[in-house]
Amino acid sequence: MTRFFVEPEELMPEFLVLTGENAQHAKVLRLKNGEEVLVCDGQGRECLCTVSDVSPGQISLVVKKRQESETEAAVQVSVYMAFPKADKLEHVIQKATELGAYEIVAFPSARCVSRPDEKSLKKKLERWQKIAASAAEQSGRGRIPQVLTVGSYKEALERAVQADKAILFYENERATTLRMALEAGEYKTLSLLTGPEGGLEEKEVQQAQEAGLQVCTLGKRILRCETAPLCALSAVMYASGEF
Amino acid sequence: MTRFFVEPEELMPEFLVLTGENAQHAKVLRLKNGEEVLVCDGQGRECLCTVSDVSPGQISLVVKKRQESETEAAVQVSVYMAFPKADKLEHVIQKATELGAYEIVAFPSARCVSRPDEKSLKKKLERWQKIAASAAEQSGRGRIPQVLTVGSYKEALERAVQADKAILFYENERATTLRMALEAGEYKTLSLLTGPEGGLEEKEVQQAQEAGLQVCTLGKRILRCETAPLCALSAVMYASGEF
Repeated sequence: MTRFFVEPEELMPEFLVLTGENAQHAKVLRLKNGEEVLVCDGQGRECLCTVSDVSPGQISLVVKKRQESETEAAVQVSVYMAFPKADKLEHVIQKATELGAYEIVAFPSARCVSRPDEKSLKKKLERWQKIAASAAEQSGRGRIPQVLTVGSYKEALERAVQADKAILFYENERATTLRMALEAGEYKTLSLLTGPEGGLEEKEVQQAQEAGLQVCTLGKRILRCETAPLCALSAVMYASGEF
Repeated sequence: MTRFFVEPEELMPEFLVLTGENAQHAKVLRLKNGEEVLVCDGQGRECLCTVSDVSPGQISLVVKKRQESETEAAVQVSVYMAFPKADKLEHVIQKATELGAYEIVAFPSARCVSRPDEKSLKKKLERWQKIAASAAEQSGRGRIPQVLTVGSYKEALERAVQADKAILFYENERATTLRMALEAGEYKTLSLLTGPEGGLEEKEVQQAQEAGLQVCTLGKRILRCETAPLCALSAVMYASGEF
């Protein structure tokens, strides 16, 4: 079923109107009276609607049913990724959204070669949020993960440990597996941190441990910085019973 | 440690010589006498060596120890992917290699929009194999997964069911999860099949079932054709105790 995202305050109880980009999109799809569509607020609430009128630039809908989205993951996973080069972050945003991430947080670390400056950041965040919105729509999600950045590594750690579990992946860790970390106690929220191209520095790993994160391995093979978060997220979704 | 791949017949018991591209690579890395390197046959056997002489175009090595590669996965996973558009197959080859796939098999299916012709296939296979080799080296694997293609969907199914378990992922499957399929009985070899951009046709799914594959879901969110095999492979590696 076609899925439209509107602002939360637009999700009215009985009637809805699609305008702007949504109306354009509806036109492209040649929506007709009587057809059913899903309208989501991007935060997990949605309305099953029937098209009641198609006018230029405006589609009127009658709400049949309000519901919580059925496609959101039971565990809220925050994906923390050190700023990678070029388009890798965009790749991770798209894939992590498909895989069900709750939010994506980019942070600076010692070996990051790329770090957007203040000026370009606002534009980039807009672009990243659009990528997440488009991936959410395509994968049938009811929630658009928020994409955000934090100003320092320390801030990333402090934010990450607010979750029930916070895990950092380090290629030199041998003893503690992701499984051990996940199986030790219940969790509803989870933070997963991964480093940049050159990896995290040893003192950064120590700093994370001191902040309360668990340091885990993702196995004996060295994963690229854009592969690691998606591998970890897939494993967590499997472990938490999503598939 | 730096890792070089040679042909299996070049892996001699006492002395080794690196030539051609490997010697060039060694020069770029400024390898010196006494340094340790790993020389792998790309099939899981490797030699720990010490550099004994560096000459133009030729690096001589003394073998210290022969061993089985320690970075190969315990389960041999064959990733079967319907030919996707453009560079998506290359993406999956690179990532599946990092994640530990045993081999990658591309096959045609009804809704494939892209399918290399006989003429271009040989060149493409060479290119794909190079991508796998480079990803194997970078991720520290001892084995280079073979990339191959089969001529028909039927052939893909017949080949896939040779494994201890063969699973096909279908977005309309709701009841059987990957976990159910994996937990029902032991396996050393495993085939994972995923469809092209437009998905598999219902009758193709039925055909797979008749051939002996299990049809599973990857969850409630619709994954892109290049995301699904990597998500499944990550989950299988987690489930089989790799991390």
